[in-house]
Amino acid sequence: MAVRKGNHTILFERPITLAAAAAAVGKKEGEGPLHDYFDRIHTDTTLHEKSFERAEAALQKEAFTVLMTKAGIAPSDVSFLFAGDLLNQCISSTFGLQDFSVPLFGIYGACSTFSEGLLLAAMALEGGCGERAVVVTSSHFCTAERQFRFPLEYGGLRTPTSQWTATAAGAVLLGQSGTGPRLTAATPGIVTDYGVKDANNMGAAMAPAAAVTIGNFFRDTGRCPEDYDLIATGDLGLVGSELLITLLKKDAIDISRQHNDCGLMLYDVKGQGTTCGGSGCGCSASVFSAYLYDQLKKGRMHKLLLVSTGALLSPTSTMQGENIPCIAHLVEITAGKEGA
Amino acid sequence: MAVRKGNHTILFERPITLAAAAAAVGKKEGEGPLHDYFDRIHTDTTLHEKSFERAEAALQKEAFTVLMTKAGIAPSDVSFLFAGDLLNQCISSTFGLQDFSVPLFGIYGACSTFSEGLLLAAMALEGGCGERAVVVTSSHFCTAERQFRFPLEYGGLRTPTSQWTATAAGAVLLGQSGTGPRLTAATPGIVTDYGVKDANNMGAAMAPAAAVTIGNFFRDTGRCPEDYDLIATGDLGLVGSELLITLLKKDAIDISRQHNDCGLMLYDVKGQGTTCGGSGCGCSASVFSAYLYDQLKKGRMHKLLLVSTGALLSPTSTMQGENIPCIAHLVEITAGKEGA
Repeated sequence: MAVRKGNHTILFERPITLAAAAAAVGKKEGEGPLHDYFDRIHTDTTLHEKSFERAEAALQKEAFTVLMTKAGIAPSDVSFLFAGDLLNQCISSTFGLQDFSVPLFGIYGACSTFSEGLLLAAMALEGGCGERAVVVTSSHFCTAERQFRFPLEYGGLRTPTSQWTATAAGAVLLGQSGTGPRLTAATPGIVTDYGVKDANNMGAAMAPAAAVTIGNFFRDTGRCPEDYDLIATGDLGLVGSELLITLLKKDAIDISRQHNDCGLMLYDVKGQGTTCGGSGCGCSASVFSAYLYDQLKKGRMHKLLLVSTGALLSPTSTMQGENIPCIAHLVEITAGKEGA
Repeated sequence: MAVRKGNHTILFERPITLAAAAAAVGKKEGEGPLHDYFDRIHTDTTLHEKSFERAEAALQKEAFTVLMTKAGIAPSDVSFLFAGDLLNQCISSTFGLQDFSVPLFGIYGACSTFSEGLLLAAMALEGGCGERAVVVTSSHFCTAERQFRFPLEYGGLRTPTSQWTATAAGAVLLGQSGTGPRLTAATPGIVTDYGVKDANNMGAAMAPAAAVTIGNFFRDTGRCPEDYDLIATGDLGLVGSELLITLLKKDAIDISRQHNDCGLMLYDVKGQGTTCGGSGCGCSASVFSAYLYDQLKKGRMHKLLLVSTGALLSPTSTMQGENIPCIAHLVEITAGKEGA
């Protein structure tokens, strides 16, 4: 039985184990600093599919398939899937995972979807509602550009605060037993709206949501940044990361020494021309499933906070002059069996 | 602790109580046969908002607000919200619920989102991860027509198999204690694709998904249709309902005497000119939260299966010639304290 701590935080009592993880990425991501950690790297970002939407679906399918192989189990051994992406009506997840006949829960938290999925999967397993759950999320630069910005053919210029949507999918297998890193605590996010309207400055829009969730977690648990090897946000990029640290300092919380952002880990930001860094549901999903999971597994990292961040806008809400409400879900991952 | 039954079904051990329910609807829904059961009926479907998207968000906000009043609790008493809608990036939920500062899990299962939310909320409560959870979903005829079909101004003709997206929101409060109907079992849905491509015949596309989930539930539990007062699908309409009964008969399951469809209950289908009946995330949400919940509460109904059905297409997937994969999530609701 889980224990509620403070107003928002959940401490998991069961050993919710992250038994395996897998990541499949595109060319640019494969050329980045995490090159050695990905399970699959595609030099053709169409994945030989007829559309970029199909390609993104194929990334999810591949991440899930590789995950099954690494875990040595079959899709029929999975109680349910939690999956989502950025596309309208989450079609990458539906089309990417439909062949496996695993019960599917579609989720949407924009770029926070990966940690939202981990949190929901852990809650379901804590109650004994299933034996194994898989979380898969993805994004694709070409599908996101067309849907949220401009078709690539238009050749629109990128603003200085823009971020680069990762072409990537990450998948994690959670179970009630076994060794490996454990999901030991979580703080679900609250929709936070600081009045930002610039759809090309997601980092600034999302930073306050991350600050609220991280602040809630530390207040609820009485823990401090020094208890963690890394506090990884999802995709705040250069602008948002700086803003997050500033906002938390006002709250007397200094994470400057523990913080890094998956969007800044995924690329050589300046060298690869990704402006302010990576973003997308596939960003924190692939960075966690490839690099961070490996570090936890090898004991190079002992305690990690993953805080995927999402901007809950749509092109329609932007055109209607609405603000960009954001959300950030936090999960605490602890290496080995030691628990929370 | 929940118990797994068969391959897909979850039996909940805790008294997951449906403590309260509320529904807010538009003019056409208010003029239908369930008129007396809705908490709010709006004759102006803009709800005096500047856009139909804002109006749909206002419906969610109102359903949640009325729910809090009926339950006699404050938003701060709610551990988390599960919310979703049909709009791109689920903006009705984000904008409708952002003022309440309740942790939010965005979910997407198209028109199956309501029962998906009930299922996820029950799993979270079963594990003791929260004390109270609220599920809210909505749809709006005008936002859906513009996004999925044509702008209203275009005056497009409706095909004989088309359904009418409900302008409605439903909200349910789930808790770990108290009296009232209980969520006693659930069977999550599997993505089912029978090759239907006609985006104006959702009923035919969704019926196979409902048949798979209902079949799985009866096989897993060994129960039969006669054990239920009502087996209510979400929005199969006239065409889909007939197809569902035919498909299940091939599987030696006859639900013809227990089955009804929320899309057929919500309107006087012929009299109100809704072609094949209602649809949308707000359809099963409002029919359950208004009428079915009332019948369970008053003991006029003892055992109910609610099977909300979702078509997981997007305008993009349709334009790209893809099939319409569908999903249906099933929840068993039992009146009073008797349990499963």
